[in-house]
Amino acid sequence: MIADRMQGFQASGIRKVFDLAQKIKNPINLSIGQPDFDVPDEIKREAVRAIESGFNRYTITQGIPELSEKVLQEAKTEHGIICNSIMMTSGVAGALTLAFLVLINPGDEILVPDPYFVSFKHLIKLCGGDIKFIDTYPDFELTPDRVLSSISPRSKILLINSPSNPTGVVCKPQHIIEICEIANKHNLLIISDEIYRKFVYDTSYQSAGKFYENTLTCNGFSKSYAMTGWRLGSVIGPKKIINEMIKLQQYTYICAPSFAQMAGVKALDIDMSMYIEAYKKKRDFVYNGLKDRYKLIKPEGAFYLFPQVPMGTDEEFATRAIEEDLLIIPGSVFSEKNSHFRLSYAASFETLERGINVLNSMSLLH
Amino acid sequence: MIADRMQGFQASGIRKVFDLAQKIKNPINLSIGQPDFDVPDEIKREAVRAIESGFNRYTITQGIPELSEKVLQEAKTEHGIICNSIMMTSGVAGALTLAFLVLINPGDEILVPDPYFVSFKHLIKLCGGDIKFIDTYPDFELTPDRVLSSISPRSKILLINSPSNPTGVVCKPQHIIEICEIANKHNLLIISDEIYRKFVYDTSYQSAGKFYENTLTCNGFSKSYAMTGWRLGSVIGPKKIINEMIKLQQYTYICAPSFAQMAGVKALDIDMSMYIEAYKKKRDFVYNGLKDRYKLIKPEGAFYLFPQVPMGTDEEFATRAIEEDLLIIPGSVFSEKNSHFRLSYAASFETLERGINVLNSMSLLH
Repeated sequence: MIADRMQGFQASGIRKVFDLAQKIKNPINLSIGQPDFDVPDEIKREAVRAIESGFNRYTITQGIPELSEKVLQEAKTEHGIICNSIMMTSGVAGALTLAFLVLINPGDEILVPDPYFVSFKHLIKLCGGDIKFIDTYPDFELTPDRVLSSISPRSKILLINSPSNPTGVVCKPQHIIEICEIANKHNLLIISDEIYRKFVYDTSYQSAGKFYENTLTCNGFSKSYAMTGWRLGSVIGPKKIINEMIKLQQYTYICAPSFAQMAGVKALDIDMSMYIEAYKKKRDFVYNGLKDRYKLIKPEGAFYLFPQVPMGTDEEFATRAIEEDLLIIPGSVFSEKNSHFRLSYAASFETLERGINVLNSMSLLH
Repeated sequence: MIADRMQGFQASGIRKVFDLAQKIKNPINLSIGQPDFDVPDEIKREAVRAIESGFNRYTITQGIPELSEKVLQEAKTEHGIICNSIMMTSGVAGALTLAFLVLINPGDEILVPDPYFVSFKHLIKLCGGDIKFIDTYPDFELTPDRVLSSISPRSKILLINSPSNPTGVVCKPQHIIEICEIANKHNLLIISDEIYRKFVYDTSYQSAGKFYENTLTCNGFSKSYAMTGWRLGSVIGPKKIINEMIKLQQYTYICAPSFAQMAGVKALDIDMSMYIEAYKKKRDFVYNGLKDRYKLIKPEGAFYLFPQVPMGTDEEFATRAIEEDLLIIPGSVFSEKNSHFRLSYAASFETLERGINVLNSMSLLH
């Protein structure tokens, strides 16, 4: 009964770790893909006000204008995004699902930097696309050269996820500009997943949508404002594509949750720099705690590190970590290679310290 | 750039009517596909409590156990559903999207009673399925004979939507039993969209999932509790299918909104019979108001009537209605025929009376 497109479609390795986490009494959980703070109170209050005042019905498919206009304005003012068409989605996952369904014909080639966020691979396969991985090991930089050498005549879409989940690496501004030129020359659409855009440290952030019109810029409220359970995101891009995505949303997602849209309007006024500053400190804390015993890049964004495992495979290493009550994600969940692991520092300093100690003791063993 | 699967994919005719509605100052709006009451206060309070207490993060993909177990229990106690696997979805639209993506291979034949809810047609096409319409005019009954005469060797899925949007007709209990026998004999999966299950008048409701194991029973909170903007639904069915849908949900919808799941637990305790009673009165009011001048069936469920247009096509009639400030939906949005129109009685008695007067005056003209 199950359709062919589900062949080989796997439950995420993250889920496996979550299941294991249930069984450990007091796990050192460095596997979490969401902020460890709660939605700021002002945003919660706005959500409550929306519900109490009866803002509980379907909204128009593309999202309420108060929100979409404000998101578009922010994208233009802060990131110089060129395109003018926008829709609100059910998180970035919603935006990517609609985009892939709308854009991919069976056999189209999609360029995906490896390591990659786990959804990309499965969603592209679901739509019948062929994935061509761009190997970015060992520094995880998406460079113009690496893009260029991956392009074939069948290449249609280039995916960029900066800051990256799982590596935390932020694409260099000059690289973004050159990659946009390459995309333009080779008529590629860029899908830019910018869900971690607020979490950038030490560097400036450049968005491909500033330099190249043929870009779908996907952003969400989930990570920036800890609204992961509220399912709110946005996508800005060429009118022709956004219009088709709106059509499809009408039959699939219908609309982003109503109260979350109203709360989102408020969220854009909230200064999150204190939270970001805290994560920068956590990154430094974990990086400095591990750098002498692990091969790892110091990333400039998101809340992940992607160190190399000191011995054996990533799964062997993650399994050994679980024996020490430490939850991390094997790198092969996010990669065609099995040599690294993902560590999230969206956790308390106390948890991070416990994690560092376990990891350093594990590294000593070999 | 746009993929072939989007060819002929249309924005719903409902949207057109919504757009027109914006332009009329004080429209008689009988086009609304959602209840005209707000979420009951006790449910709102639970939603607020969830948000304030920090229940704002991703939930597990399949939904929180407190809710899914309670929904399953209700389905078993009240409707005798056989299957034991359940997942929470982002509304019934979410359940249907996942089901179709998981089940349909290009060329599979899906049997869809006509008139049909507009999404079915587009979602099935999106997945490459071939739709075979089962003509249920003029009484809109899905009878065993009509099902039987539509089956071909390529038939894989039978869709049932009882009570039906747009006709309001409820499948006769004996017909459901016989249709299940036919489905069993011909190895069809039944997808039963039961979103209007709470809105049944004068008759008892039978669910196909009570008689036939190979049934996906889709239900939502949107219509029953006026939570349309909260995006919460459920699907119960064979374990093998539900498991694949959960896998896919992880990469597409992620999870149903967190606070809505918590509020849903409360909703199941709320007695909605007062609201249902009010809709029964409205149905009688509109039916009695129109029956002398329109050919129409008195339906036993949902909050729609589907009368025949007295002259010309459905679009001509709907356009003439708009000139009288009356918003109704042309039947061809929901059908391969263009001879009827959908009228929603989810409106105040005052609005309904104004609508009846306009419709009766329009019928007099010819």
